[in-house]
Amino acid sequence: MESAILLISCPDRKGIVKEIASFIADNGGNILHFDQHIDYQREIFFARVEWDIKDFRIPRDLIEEAFKPIAEKFHMDFSLHFGDYLQKVAIFVSKQDHCFYDLMQRFKSGELRGQVKLVISNHPDLKPIADFFGVPYYHIPKSKENKKEAEAKELSLLKEHHIDLIILARYMQILSKSFVDKFRNRIINIHHSFLPAFPGAKPYHRAYHRGVKIIGATSHYVTEILDEGPIIEQDIIRVSHRDSLEDFIRKGKDIERIVLARAVKWHLEHKVLVYDNKTVVFD
Amino acid sequence: MESAILLISCPDRKGIVKEIASFIADNGGNILHFDQHIDYQREIFFARVEWDIKDFRIPRDLIEEAFKPIAEKFHMDFSLHFGDYLQKVAIFVSKQDHCFYDLMQRFKSGELRGQVKLVISNHPDLKPIADFFGVPYYHIPKSKENKKEAEAKELSLLKEHHIDLIILARYMQILSKSFVDKFRNRIINIHHSFLPAFPGAKPYHRAYHRGVKIIGATSHYVTEILDEGPIIEQDIIRVSHRDSLEDFIRKGKDIERIVLARAVKWHLEHKVLVYDNKTVVFD
Amino acid sequence: MESAILLISCPDRKGIVKEIASFIADNGGNILHFDQHIDYQREIFFARVEWDIKDFRIPRDLIEEAFKPIAEKFHMDFSLHFGDYLQKVAIFVSKQDHCFYDLMQRFKSGELRGQVKLVISNHPDLKPIADFFGVPYYHIPKSKENKKEAEAKELSLLKEHHIDLIILARYMQILSKSFVDKFRNRIINIHHSFLPAFPGAKPYHRAYHRGVKIIGATSHYVTEILDEGPIIEQDIIRVSHRDSLEDFIRKGKDIERIVLARAVKWHLEHKVLVYDNKTVVFD
Amino acid sequence: MESAILLISCPDRKGIVKEIASFIADNGGNILHFDQHIDYQREIFFARVEWDIKDFRIPRDLIEEAFKPIAEKFHMDFSLHFGDYLQKVAIFVSKQDHCFYDLMQRFKSGELRGQVKLVISNHPDLKPIADFFGVPYYHIPKSKENKKEAEAKELSLLKEHHIDLIILARYMQILSKSFVDKFRNRIINIHHSFLPAFPGAKPYHRAYHRGVKIIGATSHYVTEILDEGPIIEQDIIRVSHRDSLEDFIRKGKDIERIVLARAVKWHLEHKVLVYDNKTVVFD
Repeated sequence: MESAILLISCPDRKGIVKEIASFIADNGGNILHFDQHIDYQREIFFARVEWDIKDFRIPRDLIEEAFKPIAEKFHMDFSLHFGDYLQKVAIFVSKQDHCFYDLMQRFKSGELRGQVKLVISNHPDLKPIADFFGVPYYHIPKSKENKKEAEAKELSLLKEHHIDLIILARYMQILSKSFVDKFRNRIINIHHSFLPAFPGAKPYHRAYHRGVKIIGATSHYVTEILDEGPIIEQDIIRVSHRDSLEDFIRKGKDIERIVLARAVKWHLEHKVLVYDNKTVVFD
Repeated sequence: MESAILLISCPDRKGIVKEIASFIADNGGNILHFDQHIDYQREIFFARVEWDIKDFRIPRDLIEEAFKPIAEKFHMDFSLHFGDYLQKVAIFVSKQDHCFYDLMQRFKSGELRGQVKLVISNHPDLKPIADFFGVPYYHIPKSKENKKEAEAKELSLLKEHHIDLIILARYMQILSKSFVDKFRNRIINIHHSFLPAFPGAKPYHRAYHRGVKIIGATSHYVTEILDEGPIIEQDIIRVSHRDSLEDFIRKGKDIERIVLARAVKWHLEHKVLVYDNKTVVFD
Repeated sequence: MESAILLISCPDRKGIVKEIASFIADNGGNILHFDQHIDYQREIFFARVEWDIKDFRIPRDLIEEAFKPIAEKFHMDFSLHFGDYLQKVAIFVSKQDHCFYDLMQRFKSGELRGQVKLVISNHPDLKPIADFFGVPYYHIPKSKENKKEAEAKELSLLKEHHIDLIILARYMQILSKSFVDKFRNRIINIHHSFLPAFPGAKPYHRAYHRGVKIIGATSHYVTEILDEGPIIEQDIIRVSHRDSLEDFIRKGKDIERIVLARAVKWHLEHKVLVYDNKTVVFD
Repeated sequence: MESAILLISCPDRKGIVKEIASFIADNGGNILHFDQHIDYQREIFFARVEWDIKDFRIPRDLIEEAFKPIAEKFHMDFSLHFGDYLQKVAIFVSKQDHCFYDLMQRFKSGELRGQVKLVISNHPDLKPIADFFGVPYYHIPKSKENKKEAEAKELSLLKEHHIDLIILARYMQILSKSFVDKFRNRIINIHHSFLPAFPGAKPYHRAYHRGVKIIGATSHYVTEILDEGPIIEQDIIRVSHRDSLEDFIRKGKDIERIVLARAVKWHLEHKVLVYDNKTVVFD
């Protein structure tokens, strides 16, 4: 679908919707989705507007410029996207394959719209899966000693492939602050607990030890503070005393897959706005 | 909150959002919520717009008239509501008290905004609860023979109290078509199954007999066809072979309460639009 | 139903089920439920056995004594209960009424089997509800200064009424260690978060601030460490950016009610075994 | 784990548990799981007993014979299984790949314990996936005309490979009664609706048209009546007016995968007992 998408946030005041809608209507666009949200505590206006640009009188490459006066008038932060652009994606994995398989199948079937350009791993194990799906696999081992060089190599690959989005599909390495800064709100991680419960290592072990009756998974944007980034999606599954630690891990995988896939889908469709370490998800 | 709410549906075409937003902004209103939805199969535009009318330059009683030219231009069906108006509610009950209690407590606590003006029942049993909450209770027995007279009495009470919304809180009588017609999309029923599974009588018995692993409840607007009206909300709860029929019934009650309360809340906040026997719920 | 219930835990070894089943069968009992669980990590055997004692050849008051040799042989911890005994319950409340209403209605309808003998509160507000349900209401104000005396008064009331179970239905006071010790695994609290996330004060505020996508509630036995006791039940509900803090609180109430009611029901039916700060729930 | 599993059903009466437990204990076995259930309406006793046979004094191939006197005494239906036997599985697919991928990955990872011996399809499309996982793929086209021959070919393959369990992973063909009879309670299907709602063709289309707020999936044993077999597992996912028919289908896939995988897992672990067109699932 030939569409343009505006993601907007700004201080709330009168007339914002009118100006955005007029910009689109007066130039011949037809609004497909208009999602708006106001945070009344902070008096911030958020919107996601998608419109048909088939007959839009402003050419694609001039829309951003044309919208700027409105953005300035209302002190907007905004970003412009196009519905038919296929984002370039890198997937980082370690040894666990369940999220990786799942994502690849969803990309292949078209459920997730994007191009997986490369897979990066600190282990060689999952190469056969990447091969099966026809995606290049880069094995970049990581240790305390070589972390800097390894990240430099990774960054160079990401740059070379013009990567828009990084997915950490159970990637068991912590990225440095300088790495994260280069992909602010463009790295999605899946954490295998219901955050803020059990951040960090071995959440299933700790959940089992605590005797919880429900376990969960959380997808979030990566920030420099571990497992503290803006949450995009969470889901849960029931456990009982009958479930061993192995059952926790097995059941959790089903939730990890789904929660990660949902977050990636929303991100690729430009439905996620980040502010104040929280997300607005126009699902 | 002094606000006005427009519920709108019309054929989709360019410029609708602009005109609505301009109507509000040009008269000094500030949009609080703008929810929009397009059914692409049928090319219908739906919207719920709520705006602050504290400084609105059109007085309340003239807003409807002032909006009409826009409505006509776009062939809109629309209704106008005010956020500070407390709707007048009648609750119909039979012998089961769980939904009735629950609703009364939610109205009393202010979670549900409305005035329960009267309770009508074909049985005397629940009068003490109505008394406790200080609401008049009318016992109107019903049989095949007296149904017409009973409904006439009910309608006269509803008229006298200017009732806006009728809630059937496990009311075990079927209302006639002529009754329903007078309150089109203003009678909410709770059915104790996951519709369209198990419509009609004894759904828990049938669910138990069928060996389902999940049971549910459905709140819907009442139409002349039993359990076929537009669905507002549904929810479910797991059951297993360990659950007897009595357990099905008991577990189901928790879902009935919640599903009915959600539907009533959305209706009272003018968040539900009906079309084509379905609902758009701007939750 | 005239039944006896044994709750058993002991080191796992061969022959336990045989001995228990033989004890029952050889004395003319018919097993109604036999639930067993083994924690393989710790090699502990757990069981809940319920049998019909209508034709049981050992009289009620001698069963415990008669079972002791088996218990000793296997080094069992065990407790014996009777299905037709109505436990005596005290409910502690503060100002919030939703869980209190809900529990009272469930006790009244027979869904929860027990006798609510008294309500204790540090505020006078909820007395009308207790009056409506015909249960004595004791207003015992609490402050830092009088905590000791207040608890002494409470304990004396609990003793006088032979209370078996205390339910903290959103009671906003922390009980002292010495109080808790007197009702070990017999005080059930509802905490309005998904523990171990957000223990302590204002969990909804913190959940809102963190931007979680799911909120929850947890019922647990009270121990001397705040919100760290054995978890009996948890459940959750989805939230989104559209939900204000008030919506979090409102939605949470529905979960609090249900999670507390489930825990109380299981406890009253002797389905909960505590060990190692966790629970086995034979639901 | 070297274990034996007994699945038992019989009329309820005194002493059953004792005799089963004695049979195991007296021959040196250690009970690992003892799950029992009584249907009080029908007075039927069900049990699943699993015990360690490492030191069991009756050799494997004589256990069934040794247990027969007890079975006869109590008029038991029973079946004996061994925990270390890997069942032989055939997967039937058509064109949709999501359940197939998912199952293959779960078998490969060991989450599902069994040997996938062959894949049968009425289309050639999914052969590459079978190849990737190293499983033979038989393309057996089906039409009204050749159905009998096609089924004969299928049955011959199933016999040749000693298939224990058939999984219909979105296989879009109806099996004949005579085929089903040969694999009574050994064919698991996934139906993409919350049965008994929307049996038969195009359930998502009908759910979309009806305006439901929740969709589901159902795994069940196949019987000669379409979508009427004993339900093993069901689960659901929320939908709203924002979801198109395509969204229903996409969201449904996640539930189909999980619901089918759970049913297969329970079946492979001998946790499912069928009676009266319902299942007892000792999960």
